[in-house]
Amino acid sequence: MAALTIDVLRYGHRDVRDYRVTTHCCLVARALGARKIIIEGTPDRGIKESVDGVTKRWGGGFKVEFMESWRSAVRKYKKAGFFIVHLTMYGLPIEKETKKLRKKGKILLIIGSQKVECDVYRLSDANISVTQQPHSEIGALAVALDGLQGGKELAKRFKGAKIRITPQPHGKKVLNAR
Amino acid sequence: MAALTIDVLRYGHRDVRDYRVTTHCCLVARALGARKIIIEGTPDRGIKESVDGVTKRWGGGFKVEFMESWRSAVRKYKKAGFFIVHLTMYGLPIEKETKKLRKKGKILLIIGSQKVECDVYRLSDANISVTQQPHSEIGALAVALDGLQGGKELAKRFKGAKIRITPQPHGKKVLNAR
Repeated sequence: MAALTIDVLRYGHRDVRDYRVTTHCCLVARALGARKIIIEGTPDRGIKESVDGVTKRWGGGFKVEFMESWRSAVRKYKKAGFFIVHLTMYGLPIEKETKKLRKKGKILLIIGSQKVECDVYRLSDANISVTQQPHSEIGALAVALDGLQGGKELAKRFKGAKIRITPQPHGKKVLNAR
Repeated sequence: MAALTIDVLRYGHRDVRDYRVTTHCCLVARALGARKIIIEGTPDRGIKESVDGVTKRWGGGFKVEFMESWRSAVRKYKKAGFFIVHLTMYGLPIEKETKKLRKKGKILLIIGSQKVECDVYRLSDANISVTQQPHSEIGALAVALDGLQGGKELAKRFKGAKIRITPQPHGKKVLNAR
């Protein structure tokens, strides 16, 4: 299985109200091997600084960007050869589509909130569900990233980390990596 | 692989401030096959009503309970033969522990927030990490539930559902199930 390039588009971020949920989306995207997150909405310096701070300490090259329009993001990604996957409980079951999706090489995962415009469904190359139940875009993103990469991302080593955890059965062990 | 019974304990819920994140935890637990969530903290009628409402419409027997002390919850679960698993980035990698954990039959998954008392690490039977990176208890819970159940929960049918989704490549299709 060749490594996938996965970017994430967070649709419909609302300033202040979505601060925590969008931050969770960013951190899940980073920890589970995505390369970048694009947040549709007004640039929120707090989110960017907080996630960039995590990347600075914990390593890797994860990027946070804001864009005013999801349409132009999708257009840009289509041009760059990305396959556009919208995660929605109305879509086709991920467990049946994973093999096909892995072959795409470059994927943009769109995660929304409660109200997503019809055009997101229409303009995406695939609408994919992580269960057909209402739950959480954070949970759906995590399961999708893990499934698409076959769990390989769980052991990903983040380059340039200043600190690193040594797994322990009980307690905490953090090492200075430099 | 025999079916696992998995309950979730949400540690350190703070009233109002954690409303949305805890609701995401509940909905992920339900959608991904957990039986129940225990929330440590002041009973929050809004969360319970919202999640119970989802269960009423979408089916299944998922329960939301509040308990004032995580210790008494852990004690109760230990007595009932559950294996206590604390999800923490400091713990042993889940990808190496999954096989062992699946044999336990009954698991209580503890998910915390940023500050977790040392005793949670000490009193848990296992401390397990979903990556050794800081991210989200919602994301970690989703990956753990999916991994422990080998993805079988993704196709779970919820009994007594009033509405049910028929997966579509584009658009939405919801059926009255009764």
